[in-house]
Amino acid sequence: VQIEIINTGSELMLGSVLNTHQQWLCRELAKLGYVVTRQTAVADSGEMIEQTVREGLSRADLVITTGGLGPTSDDITRDRIAQLLDCALHEDSRVVQHIEEFFAHRHRAMPGSTRVQALVPESAIVLPNAHGTAPGLVMEVPGGRFRAGERPSLLIMLPGPPRELRPMFSNQVVPLLRAKLPAMEDFLCRTFLTTGLGESLVEERIAPSLRPLIEQGLELGYCARVGEVELRCVARGASAVQIISQAERTIRELLPDHIFGVEDETLESSVVHLLIRQGRTVSVAESCTGGFIAHRLTNVPGASAVFRGGFVTYSNEAKEEFLGVRREIIRDHGAVSAETARAMAEGARHRANADYAIAVTGIAGPSGGTEEKPVGTVFIALASNGKTRVIRSVNRYDRETFKFVTSQQALDMLRRVLLKDQA
Amino acid sequence: VQIEIINTGSELMLGSVLNTHQQWLCRELAKLGYVVTRQTAVADSGEMIEQTVREGLSRADLVITTGGLGPTSDDITRDRIAQLLDCALHEDSRVVQHIEEFFAHRHRAMPGSTRVQALVPESAIVLPNAHGTAPGLVMEVPGGRFRAGERPSLLIMLPGPPRELRPMFSNQVVPLLRAKLPAMEDFLCRTFLTTGLGESLVEERIAPSLRPLIEQGLELGYCARVGEVELRCVARGASAVQIISQAERTIRELLPDHIFGVEDETLESSVVHLLIRQGRTVSVAESCTGGFIAHRLTNVPGASAVFRGGFVTYSNEAKEEFLGVRREIIRDHGAVSAETARAMAEGARHRANADYAIAVTGIAGPSGGTEEKPVGTVFIALASNGKTRVIRSVNRYDRETFKFVTSQQALDMLRRVLLKDQA
Repeated sequence: VQIEIINTGSELMLGSVLNTHQQWLCRELAKLGYVVTRQTAVADSGEMIEQTVREGLSRADLVITTGGLGPTSDDITRDRIAQLLDCALHEDSRVVQHIEEFFAHRHRAMPGSTRVQALVPESAIVLPNAHGTAPGLVMEVPGGRFRAGERPSLLIMLPGPPRELRPMFSNQVVPLLRAKLPAMEDFLCRTFLTTGLGESLVEERIAPSLRPLIEQGLELGYCARVGEVELRCVARGASAVQIISQAERTIRELLPDHIFGVEDETLESSVVHLLIRQGRTVSVAESCTGGFIAHRLTNVPGASAVFRGGFVTYSNEAKEEFLGVRREIIRDHGAVSAETARAMAEGARHRANADYAIAVTGIAGPSGGTEEKPVGTVFIALASNGKTRVIRSVNRYDRETFKFVTSQQALDMLRRVLLKDQA
Repeated sequence: VQIEIINTGSELMLGSVLNTHQQWLCRELAKLGYVVTRQTAVADSGEMIEQTVREGLSRADLVITTGGLGPTSDDITRDRIAQLLDCALHEDSRVVQHIEEFFAHRHRAMPGSTRVQALVPESAIVLPNAHGTAPGLVMEVPGGRFRAGERPSLLIMLPGPPRELRPMFSNQVVPLLRAKLPAMEDFLCRTFLTTGLGESLVEERIAPSLRPLIEQGLELGYCARVGEVELRCVARGASAVQIISQAERTIRELLPDHIFGVEDETLESSVVHLLIRQGRTVSVAESCTGGFIAHRLTNVPGASAVFRGGFVTYSNEAKEEFLGVRREIIRDHGAVSAETARAMAEGARHRANADYAIAVTGIAGPSGGTEEKPVGTVFIALASNGKTRVIRSVNRYDRETFKFVTSQQALDMLRRVLLKDQA
């Protein structure tokens, strides 16, 4: 099964917006067992849209477009595709009614321009938009029209805003695909998330032992990111389940404590779930990460049961006043020091009445470094009952990457201590 | 000038990773005056890589690939492209030396597999990798080979990890493009970021007055995101500067207080810069946003001068202990109430000794709502000298979008008060 995604939007070509549709749609399709074969993005240009949709329909069983269905003058996907497929547009009265209700419900006047969104190609299935005004559109393109052979292609046009596209896809497109798209061959993918080793070392550790499985069809993929390596195992066909489960056993033996999660698990969710299972609580005191660790932890549903609160203490005064760090400690050792990190963690643990507390203090840069403590230097402390550990690292990155890598180290430190305390 | 970006990576097709290269590269190219015409992403499959690179070279002056240059077995871009272009690979001794030094410098043994990265096509320009082991490669493809005409195409292969790709692009590719790529026609793009109006209303307010400029070649683009609408003005040719500056004057007159920034400015950076200019400080107390507002503010370089610290107070106890909110207030009005938000903001302002304090308390969901206060209900308070304002909103989204929209409202509230206090 060949699947292509086409995103339209001039803002994508100028880099003024991050394209999150590709990841989201690919992930949802993978859950159904479908792997996307190609992603394309082009400007809101009628010619480019027509060209890429025609190419997609010449190759694929399914083409999904996003964007260009809205009310403004640069929304031209609907028109261009109707032209390409020689379909007249007509006004759909149910869509008109929906748009009118949408505005009435919000006590806002309906701008006249929004009515254009009710124009739909004659043969299209209309997908009502529960969170906006532009409906999605589905068209079946007969085999032989753009693609050789008799199999038809499915063309699905979705609105651009993620909060409109996502529920429309999940609630309306998924059942449609189940009914209309040919079934995939058995396909199984298992992803392991590791931290603490580079990708070459991950491969060196596991590949030799996995060779027999590779000969049976196991495919390995590696994706190195800052602070983590993703290891992906894919198998197809009747023995896929068996191959993947054998691979998992081997991989877990060879990388025992480097794996922090599988699939789309995050380090923060694995930490929160460990805390919930152990009935423990945590607090954080952040200088250079500026609230990012608290943000990551509170992104996890259920965090409120284990997260006792956080402090963002950029200044020395905040470290003293919010956390009770003694002035002499900062004076004698500096705000960026093992001693200050330790005092911050112990202060946060005490003030928030938590079982564990993480504290970070460092120099995010771009300025502020010294020879002894260069830009990127960070001290991470973890206070628990009767013991405080401190590690030092040099994370020399731009500001946001620095925050991410540092939070990754801090959360992994807590994860390892939780695993140890559990044992 | 036709420019295409091709990203390779099976993880992209499975949606296990977000593709940030497209946005980054497009933005950097736009700064040079180049607009990308097409973005494509495919799996680490030799056939797909060959097919898309051949297609790209049949159309474009410049094709940039990312990924597939690393040491693991799924890194096949280098080999496939050498095949496509009929180039032999040879080991480059400077690259071998660089890889050896890279590992020696980090006191780590050099895995044997990494040596494959020193293989380069014979006619290629090698771009040393200052932050990793795989070099970038540049090849000139003569006109007539894949594309009609005499103009050559430039093919640039960059490593996949962003922290390797980005400095390589900025330091080595940019000078190369300036020398080798035909100059663009005059092209000017100005982007305005607005909040508080939907995209139809933004267009209704401005488009009629801009009609004369549109007839002179002004192009308008709209991109609606949760909590903001991006308005893009593009003009080309000799009168571009004049058209854009006239458009800006009109737009600012018609949307006076909805525009919070231009280009890639963020709401948080505009708030931090207003605070810096006015010599004022801020503190935050966050319940349902869990540190995200502090994180956004501290992402802005220079925030330390104005950010007096933050509190993440999920629980009632934390609200009482960290901020001094009186128990009776929470008991009588609830933790999610105007009264509690007000007391949190005043407590944070007092405890952090700040000029302004923002507080948010709400129900992120998915559970916890009541008829009177449904899921998504949030109270945002802003305390300043002698006055505390509170607004109520219902932000019914998934957890992370809820955090974003709420933080957007809170930061915009502060921005508007800062503009008023300044006047």
